[in-house]
Amino acid sequence: MDSDQIPDIVVGRLPRYLQALQRMSEDGKLSTSSQELGDRLGISAAQIRKDLSQFGEFGKQGTGYAIPFLIDQLETILKIKRFWDIALVGSGDLGHAIAHYPGFSDRGFRIAMVFDNDTSKIGTKVNHFIVQDIANLEKMVREAGIKIAMLTVPASAAQKVCDTLVKAGIKAILSYAPTPLTLPDNIHVEYIDPLIQLQHITYYLG
Amino acid sequence: MDSDQIPDIVVGRLPRYLQALQRMSEDGKLSTSSQELGDRLGISAAQIRKDLSQFGEFGKQGTGYAIPFLIDQLETILKIKRFWDIALVGSGDLGHAIAHYPGFSDRGFRIAMVFDNDTSKIGTKVNHFIVQDIANLEKMVREAGIKIAMLTVPASAAQKVCDTLVKAGIKAILSYAPTPLTLPDNIHVEYIDPLIQLQHITYYLG
Repeated sequence: MDSDQIPDIVVGRLPRYLQALQRMSEDGKLSTSSQELGDRLGISAAQIRKDLSQFGEFGKQGTGYAIPFLIDQLETILKIKRFWDIALVGSGDLGHAIAHYPGFSDRGFRIAMVFDNDTSKIGTKVNHFIVQDIANLEKMVREAGIKIAMLTVPASAAQKVCDTLVKAGIKAILSYAPTPLTLPDNIHVEYIDPLIQLQHITYYLG
Repeated sequence: MDSDQIPDIVVGRLPRYLQALQRMSEDGKLSTSSQELGDRLGISAAQIRKDLSQFGEFGKQGTGYAIPFLIDQLETILKIKRFWDIALVGSGDLGHAIAHYPGFSDRGFRIAMVFDNDTSKIGTKVNHFIVQDIANLEKMVREAGIKIAMLTVPASAAQKVCDTLVKAGIKAILSYAPTPLTLPDNIHVEYIDPLIQLQHITYYLG
């Protein structure tokens, strides 16, 4: 099946399945069912079976899924059986938190460079990274062949930074800047914005 | 229309519409169209019209949407024409970043209390908050009538903290802990996890 035909919303659920399976595996479990996986994630068993069936035949009727096999398959589908280097742009509080987060490296990602435009921050250390001048971003990112950027700059600076990232050859951006970005169609962008999710939650509150 | 009938995925897009409208308003714009809004957000104009029509009649054929009116309506629908107090649990790097983030207060939210279980952090200041002992969380949150919590504790501690939050009367949780949480059906939970979104992105990379 042409992977382009699989809806993005289905693709977006795969990392959640993977995360739950990895946690089960860490707990010593070897097999699971769509029912058990669904109970953990608040997703129906039927939805999980339907989602996974779009990518292949991973389980057997009655015996469920072998966890190590399904983890391996999902990692292959999501292309994380390798390390992806990330350029982090913005070394404020949130950039610090990300640069210190230990959870990326055993899940396929590695912060490789940290950039800022603040002269009081350039040259200082964040975790074991020396903060680089954003003026050197285009050259450094292109030469390193980095394809993914994380953005923790203010909303007002985000679009300009993105334009530079695209020139540098970046293909995917995870943005914490609270603003929609205008990017070429071949650049994949995801947003993380606690306000958007808080405002989603309050809809349900009395 | 009974609001329970509106799909959650539609509700989840409203804050993004609101954010784009607020930015247009800040830029001095007074009216917009579903086309223009869609172009900003990478969502089709038809989808936006369909989503909004589930909540009421907000625009006119040919003249589009009056931005201040639509902002007002969306804020009412999302119940953010008031302040929501938030209990922040976890005062590590990420908790610091959230406690210092200036963007909540003009969007309907206010960090009201910060908790941690680390005795070296309890009593210290994060922004203008004194970090409180998590042992006092249940009593303090209940007495203050706080309904929303943000969670920046390690995955291993998250479920236990959530159980306490539920006992304290919390109705909604925004969790940065990279683990699925098991909660009563009447508690609304949203997750923020950069790894989940990075693994979503890599699916599309070559």
